Amino acid sequence: MKFATVQKRIEGVLAPVITPFKRDLSPDADRFVKHCRWLMKSGCAGLAVFGTNSEANSMSVEEKLELLEALVKGGVPAAALMPGTGHCALSDSVKMTREAVRIGCGGVLMLPPFYYKGVSDEGLFRNFAEVIERVGDERLRLYLYHIPPVSQVAISLALIERLLTRYPGIVAGAKDSSGDWDNTQAMLERFKDRDFDVFPGSEVFLLDGLRAGGKGCITATGNVNPGAIDQVFRNWRSAEADKLQAGITATRKIVQKVPMIPALKAITAHFGNDPAWRTVRPPLTELTSEQDRQVITELKAAGFSMPGL
Amino acid sequence: MKFATVQKRIEGVLAPVITPFKRDLSPDADRFVKHCRWLMKSGCAGLAVFGTNSEANSMSVEEKLELLEALVKGGVPAAALMPGTGHCALSDSVKMTREAVRIGCGGVLMLPPFYYKGVSDEGLFRNFAEVIERVGDERLRLYLYHIPPVSQVAISLALIERLLTRYPGIVAGAKDSSGDWDNTQAMLERFKDRDFDVFPGSEVFLLDGLRAGGKGCITATGNVNPGAIDQVFRNWRSAEADKLQAGITATRKIVQKVPMIPALKAITAHFGNDPAWRTVRPPLTELTSEQDRQVITELKAAGFSMPGL
Repeated sequence: MKFATVQKRIEGVLAPVITPFKRDLSPDADRFVKHCRWLMKSGCAGLAVFGTNSEANSMSVEEKLELLEALVKGGVPAAALMPGTGHCALSDSVKMTREAVRIGCGGVLMLPPFYYKGVSDEGLFRNFAEVIERVGDERLRLYLYHIPPVSQVAISLALIERLLTRYPGIVAGAKDSSGDWDNTQAMLERFKDRDFDVFPGSEVFLLDGLRAGGKGCITATGNVNPGAIDQVFRNWRSAEADKLQAGITATRKIVQKVPMIPALKAITAHFGNDPAWRTVRPPLTELTSEQDRQVITELKAAGFSMPGL
Repeated sequence: MKFATVQKRIEGVLAPVITPFKRDLSPDADRFVKHCRWLMKSGCAGLAVFGTNSEANSMSVEEKLELLEALVKGGVPAAALMPGTGHCALSDSVKMTREAVRIGCGGVLMLPPFYYKGVSDEGLFRNFAEVIERVGDERLRLYLYHIPPVSQVAISLALIERLLTRYPGIVAGAKDSSGDWDNTQAMLERFKDRDFDVFPGSEVFLLDGLRAGGKGCITATGNVNPGAIDQVFRNWRSAEADKLQAGITATRKIVQKVPMIPALKAITAHFGNDPAWRTVRPPLTELTSEQDRQVITELKAAGFSMPGL
């Protein structure tokens, strides 16, 4: 293994960055870089590119690697990147993780292989272990991505325990997108002394998470509301914290009344005055015009804006 | 579009061929070709390579394309192949389908994109339509793969109706692995006059399927019991049909007492005297030695064999 240069781990707000597509549905690298740069100057500490909200699983490994290269060339610091590199196919996960480490990404956020259901922790352990061993680089910082409502394959606390014991320092944390605070709390509690950084998968749990030892959040709405969410992160010990949290929770609730991914794209299209952002790849569909109007109207009424976009 | 040479569609028993892996977990092309050749001479009318039972979703597109090339070079007729070409990523599905058509495969068996859950029929229609349009070749014969217990994304009758109306001749049929005979029956009934070939996803429904207009079956146990299953296909109108069906159903029930994919590999390893077949890719795990012993013992007691393997 190569020796690691000690690099501070990412803490704060991360956006699972939405991916712009051209009319022919190919990824739009220019718009992607521009949005990532805006996110980094608007409150995001890091970018969890190629997450669920990125429609990452609707893209090939090659398409993702091209976008990753464009980002780094476009001046986004690799240390702030936590790309999604977990695929159904072991070979794809290895290829993408290796490349992320090679370019110096701060970490990778790894889904379990999600096609086969009802698989054992032993099988999942072997999957992650194979990726770690094959990448074979001590610079790897692997964050486990627990999102059972979508993946239908969970990352149990027992699996984390086993991976963390076998690969301390490499296994660096988790994103908990279960939407189940009890699970997040149990994860925080169990691994609090284990050099394991927990990020709730929604800003709704940001303040509770920070109070219980969490390191921030990785959240869909980080794409459109990074500044306000970052304010909760920066001021969580202050007297204002609960009020700030209530504000970002209210915004989240408006957005999630309609399907999340096309909603984030519609909001970015509207507030950035760039309709091309509305394009999604199948199997997703854009919002209906009524849904689009609803979310924009409610956000405007709540005083929402995307300054500098 | 290129013009089609009229080619008889595949009918009969198809095996979703299990994929052998070497010790380093790379696909073993030689063993794969050998097994495929055995299947074709032992009762299979076609090979649904890269299906669920093939651990296809644990392999990259490149790995699958290499195996496909090895098969054709190894003398397996392309017209008998119905490779799985449906991926989460539209770009992967297009690439793999295009290649399957280029080498003359009899058809392709296409999963819906299966990462995002709760997607609309409109989104799924767009996915299949994009693949068909981008491949742009009238030789394409697309079989829809309905396997909600695993994919968690269903192919509804309404979606089939829409695809069939828009792409008659190209949309050629479906594999129904719902395990729900009512669904298979409804599919057979609704599309009986529409040039749409329905294959139940288990030989348990083979005879009922044939009596209701089905064209055969695409079944896991076709990997190990192709001859007996083919006998039901060949003799379904005979007085012996129900008895033959009872026999293959009994064998199936023995096999599915333990996890199916490692079971098929253990059986092939045992009866082919080739222990290397037991290797599976994560996230799957091989059978426990007790499970292995159980399935082999029960099969032997039932007089099961794999002649010529």
